[in-house]
Amino acid sequence: MAKQLVFGHQNPDTDAIAAAIAYAYLEKQKGYDTEAVALGEPNDETQYALNYFHHAAPRVVKTVANEVSEVMLVDHNEPQQSAPDIAKVTVTHVIDHHRIHDFNTAQPLYYHAEPVGCVSTIIYGEYQMAEVAIPKDIAGLMASAIISDTLLLKSPTTTDKDREALAALAKEAGIDPDKYGLTMLKAGTNIADKPAADLVDEDAKSFTMNGQSIRIAQVNVVDLADVHDRIAEFKDAMGQEAKAKGYDLFVALVTNILDSNTEGIVVGTDTAKAIFAKAFNTTLSNDTAQLPGVVSRKKQVVPPLTEAFGK
Amino acid sequence: MAKQLVFGHQNPDTDAIAAAIAYAYLEKQKGYDTEAVALGEPNDETQYALNYFHHAAPRVVKTVANEVSEVMLVDHNEPQQSAPDIAKVTVTHVIDHHRIHDFNTAQPLYYHAEPVGCVSTIIYGEYQMAEVAIPKDIAGLMASAIISDTLLLKSPTTTDKDREALAALAKEAGIDPDKYGLTMLKAGTNIADKPAADLVDEDAKSFTMNGQSIRIAQVNVVDLADVHDRIAEFKDAMGQEAKAKGYDLFVALVTNILDSNTEGIVVGTDTAKAIFAKAFNTTLSNDTAQLPGVVSRKKQVVPPLTEAFGK
Repeated sequence: MAKQLVFGHQNPDTDAIAAAIAYAYLEKQKGYDTEAVALGEPNDETQYALNYFHHAAPRVVKTVANEVSEVMLVDHNEPQQSAPDIAKVTVTHVIDHHRIHDFNTAQPLYYHAEPVGCVSTIIYGEYQMAEVAIPKDIAGLMASAIISDTLLLKSPTTTDKDREALAALAKEAGIDPDKYGLTMLKAGTNIADKPAADLVDEDAKSFTMNGQSIRIAQVNVVDLADVHDRIAEFKDAMGQEAKAKGYDLFVALVTNILDSNTEGIVVGTDTAKAIFAKAFNTTLSNDTAQLPGVVSRKKQVVPPLTEAFGK
Repeated sequence: MAKQLVFGHQNPDTDAIAAAIAYAYLEKQKGYDTEAVALGEPNDETQYALNYFHHAAPRVVKTVANEVSEVMLVDHNEPQQSAPDIAKVTVTHVIDHHRIHDFNTAQPLYYHAEPVGCVSTIIYGEYQMAEVAIPKDIAGLMASAIISDTLLLKSPTTTDKDREALAALAKEAGIDPDKYGLTMLKAGTNIADKPAADLVDEDAKSFTMNGQSIRIAQVNVVDLADVHDRIAEFKDAMGQEAKAKGYDLFVALVTNILDSNTEGIVVGTDTAKAIFAKAFNTTLSNDTAQLPGVVSRKKQVVPPLTEAFGK
């Protein structure tokens, strides 16, 4: 059987990395010749989890068609979030928890998506169905992914399945999810040493809304004051990036993981900024919006913004 | 919970009808308010199965948005094979075994596809996961669907999962799959009394290949001679339909279910017909191609044709 690469989206977060590792391992037990890879380096939070569970980071690849003809995708399906040469290979498996968009295949495939908080929750179910035991380190990474995607089960994307999977995986991995989880989340919030340009690129995704090009980044902190002192630097970095890439709107969601409050730094055309303010029924002060209780880009930001931009 | 309709593709075959009934029942046990409906009347084969297991045919609907705001799809995902107003409703669940094409959602959803011979095989797995007992009549319809889609496990689309599901479902339904299956398949081959225009519409699906509009129909017979005497009538009916609907290519696959051989009747532009001949490395004689061993539209016809039309 020809080798297949298994990978998550660009700018990988903990779920994208953990899901690739966990799914590659599972499919290998089923007889596939799989290798987990990543479309970017692990972020600080993910690196903390990899170190904690003594698991190597997946090899980083820039393209995939030069190595294989078939791939498996986790945590994404939209081509613009995938490998740049994804159109040159055949996708045989997808495990995801996002909307399906611009994803077309020539052949039937295995596709398992559920509207849950984390892909690792779905992969936990796949292990159960296949009756394959989850190695302790992989269980730890999957638990880390659920903690990351749901901000310790506090995000509105959280479902009972996520809660059940995290409890089972944490037990398997031998961790206290609350204690380990907060330490891991905090490991991803050290923004002091990084330039704003890096911070707003690390966990950023692109969307098209009614023909407008929208970029939405997420930055986790434990103290919003760390960002308040650097608003000008953030706006400058985002403005340059928006100009270079042609974004009509660039939003950085800065979330305090301790109290689940978010401030949005908003850069773009006056029209796009006004649409953003209207979408969240708020006003911008120094291009910054208060978004109390907003922690999920997928569930709390993309839908109202899509609605506000119109169809 | 608001009511949801569950349905298969237009021109429903036995799998489209059985899967809608089986999945609607399963999701109802999970707490959803579901009703199985169909986008057309059952064909002769399906009606035989419904009569045999004393199950009513699903209500036929022309549109869905006038009744519900959310739906579940079985045995298809492509919008042009679905309800004409599918864009006006939200798809929350899909169970399918086809390629994914032109299927876009605004929200995450439940999507379970596998490259197996029959959707009822996947739904059999869904019952097992949910630990829900399958009623005897529904087991019989699901077994009928597997027999129909795999031509009694002889199609190259057949997988071990289909074989296992059919064995278990046939036992549950109290039938001998070979004996019952051949009688059921034969019930769908009575073409003598039907006009060609009806026969090439009964199990027909539309595809877009590189911007070209393609229609592919399947007709099962027990003797290819039944069709040989009527080639002119078939070509005339297909030509009129192609002209009315703007098909660049209209192919009728006539399959002898006893020996799994197929003849393709091919109508369309000269260019499209030449592409068809090239795709199957064959020549057309009186617009008819010999396709020995070809029984699966999905696995043996759509992929080479898509490849031949180019991307």
